[in-house]
Amino acid sequence: MQLSNRIVSMQASPIRKLVPIADKAKKSGKKVYHLNIGQPDIETPKVFFDALKHFDEKVLAYSSSHGDQELIQAMVDYYKKYDIEYEKSDIIITNGGSEALLFAIIAVADPEDEILVPEPFYTNYNGFSVPVGVTVKPITTSPLDGFRLPSKEALEKVITPRTRAILLSNPGNPTGVVYTREEIQLIADIAKAHDLFVIADEVYREFIYGDFEYTSFGTVKEIQDHVIIIDSISKRYSACGARIGSIASKNKALMANVMKLAQSRLCVPTIEQVGAKELYKVDPSYFKGVNDEYRKRRDLVFKLLREIPGVIVEEPKGAFYMVVKLPVDDAEKFVIWMLEEFSYKEATVMMAPAEGFYATPGLGVDEVRIAYVLNEDDLTAAMEILKLGLEAYPGKK
Amino acid sequence: MQLSNRIVSMQASPIRKLVPIADKAKKSGKKVYHLNIGQPDIETPKVFFDALKHFDEKVLAYSSSHGDQELIQAMVDYYKKYDIEYEKSDIIITNGGSEALLFAIIAVADPEDEILVPEPFYTNYNGFSVPVGVTVKPITTSPLDGFRLPSKEALEKVITPRTRAILLSNPGNPTGVVYTREEIQLIADIAKAHDLFVIADEVYREFIYGDFEYTSFGTVKEIQDHVIIIDSISKRYSACGARIGSIASKNKALMANVMKLAQSRLCVPTIEQVGAKELYKVDPSYFKGVNDEYRKRRDLVFKLLREIPGVIVEEPKGAFYMVVKLPVDDAEKFVIWMLEEFSYKEATVMMAPAEGFYATPGLGVDEVRIAYVLNEDDLTAAMEILKLGLEAYPGKK
Repeated sequence: MQLSNRIVSMQASPIRKLVPIADKAKKSGKKVYHLNIGQPDIETPKVFFDALKHFDEKVLAYSSSHGDQELIQAMVDYYKKYDIEYEKSDIIITNGGSEALLFAIIAVADPEDEILVPEPFYTNYNGFSVPVGVTVKPITTSPLDGFRLPSKEALEKVITPRTRAILLSNPGNPTGVVYTREEIQLIADIAKAHDLFVIADEVYREFIYGDFEYTSFGTVKEIQDHVIIIDSISKRYSACGARIGSIASKNKALMANVMKLAQSRLCVPTIEQVGAKELYKVDPSYFKGVNDEYRKRRDLVFKLLREIPGVIVEEPKGAFYMVVKLPVDDAEKFVIWMLEEFSYKEATVMMAPAEGFYATPGLGVDEVRIAYVLNEDDLTAAMEILKLGLEAYPGKK
Repeated sequence: MQLSNRIVSMQASPIRKLVPIADKAKKSGKKVYHLNIGQPDIETPKVFFDALKHFDEKVLAYSSSHGDQELIQAMVDYYKKYDIEYEKSDIIITNGGSEALLFAIIAVADPEDEILVPEPFYTNYNGFSVPVGVTVKPITTSPLDGFRLPSKEALEKVITPRTRAILLSNPGNPTGVVYTREEIQLIADIAKAHDLFVIADEVYREFIYGDFEYTSFGTVKEIQDHVIIIDSISKRYSACGARIGSIASKNKALMANVMKLAQSRLCVPTIEQVGAKELYKVDPSYFKGVNDEYRKRRDLVFKLLREIPGVIVEEPKGAFYMVVKLPVDDAEKFVIWMLEEFSYKEATVMMAPAEGFYATPGLGVDEVRIAYVLNEDDLTAAMEILKLGLEAYPGKK
């Protein structure tokens, strides 16, 4: 039997494919600092676990395909705090932001259609597009100017009759970029002029470091019919393992059709929604503490990276990632070398090679994504190891 | 903006689309006996909830994309009891059987490829195939002979150069059919001769009523490279709301590629897997009690249905469904009428119209699927209501 071409042509996750090599390093006795994956060390608010402990149904029944109505109401209230006006019927709960992205892509694009995505991008945008025959067309951005969007003209040049949507994360994974109001308006104008959907992945909405305004696509009134908001509790409440996300839009036809996909897979886990509902009721002051912590980490990592000779990085403004240019021949080789060959005080560092975050061949070869999801002591130790590793690496440039 | 053709052409779930009408009936004060959905009333084994209550991590972290290793080991041990020899690396945990089916379909078929499915079939086989461009080609079976498979010649007539797999549920949803060893061998021979995958949805493996042998595709040694087993804890342990399923195969290339899909969506809920692991360790004697209960229910519903004039039904052998031919003009109209217009002692019955379970236009128009997932008293009351409803229905044939 032959496997499908689409599955064979899919690339393995650049974030997860090196996991076996890291496991081997750990088995050999090395400590591995994981900067490769956005798994925060912040404690999940206790209300989540409390809700689970108080779940007292005798039968663990299906939830509705739409999602738990109380959870959806909690999300409506949450959005209101950001001036995002959704009604309950505008929101469907999904298996993580992952499923929300998959649903959005299927709903707006047929095979051979195209979706524009600023690159480098969250690599799984490809993972959801390729199996359903949709092409990700990159809008190239660069670490040299902090990953700003290009001009209107440059953006419009990439649009073809098969373009159906612009997909972007803001704050950005893997870049940490936060788009300005002008950049958001630029995307809105283009979406309107070319009749495109905007799939706005805003799962890092609260992770903004600095005194500037954040603009959600949910607040750009004149294009609400175009906007699809992807959300998730994974990072927001440090609950990655819950797999609770959502897709939201004021476009009624879109949501009615997404509902068909939601019905096919029946529902999202019942108990996780009970916990998620409590998270969305957590007082916004919670984010202040988390935010301060990540800001300190960003400042620390940014400062230490800047001190390493040959490293190029601009200050990221949000999320908890940065894409860093390293003085190496090939970042994937370097990451593997760090795991297999290098250690300092019996420890090493794992990062995500960034090439897989680009759609344009050849870009990102000497870049890595660093997730600053560890405490300051660990991050300090990790940066020391990275510095020494770069000094010792045979493929240094 | 236009929506994708594939999403617009998808049919709404015939099982779930009438839910709003049922909700309205309930709001008006009617009790609704739900025979429309396979939501068992059997209690979920307590070990599941106990495991959740003892979960004491502070951070709800991602699980591995592969699935929780202890859960997978518990599944390996479970399969051994049925002489199904899987190793841990042969199994990936999924978001319900639903995701396992989606992964299998994507992995074996490209757009415009075909998958053969005996009809009537679990309607969501379409729900997973249509969005990814795969065509379900029906092998028609009939309530008049208890939904037996047709001859080898008839089966081979449906195969084309684009056929990639045979997908079937055994025991069957919605038919309750259990295939004989000869029928399993027939499918195996065809798969071998035509180089097809067999996607065996065996989520009802334990739900067999009668003293005859059940043959899992996992035991047909000579075609193990062709076989993909879909499983789920939803019905097996009455844990529908957990959304824990699995895909298993001895075909290493297939599983390596399915892993790419698993990595894209990161992982399955962490806590639900902790509970599921305990379920797969439950002593097999558990199934005896559940089985006895469902057998009584089947006998009861079958007997009462046979007493209703004009109803045609053969004794189903497994799962907890039956497809019943009713003396009505249109089963969907009848189901809606029962919800909106009819009641007896302030109660009515909801069933799933069977037309959506057929791919061949025109088939199943006067059939419904009944899920006997309620206790005997409720089933007796429901059959009484159905009988009276059929007498009163204006579209009676």
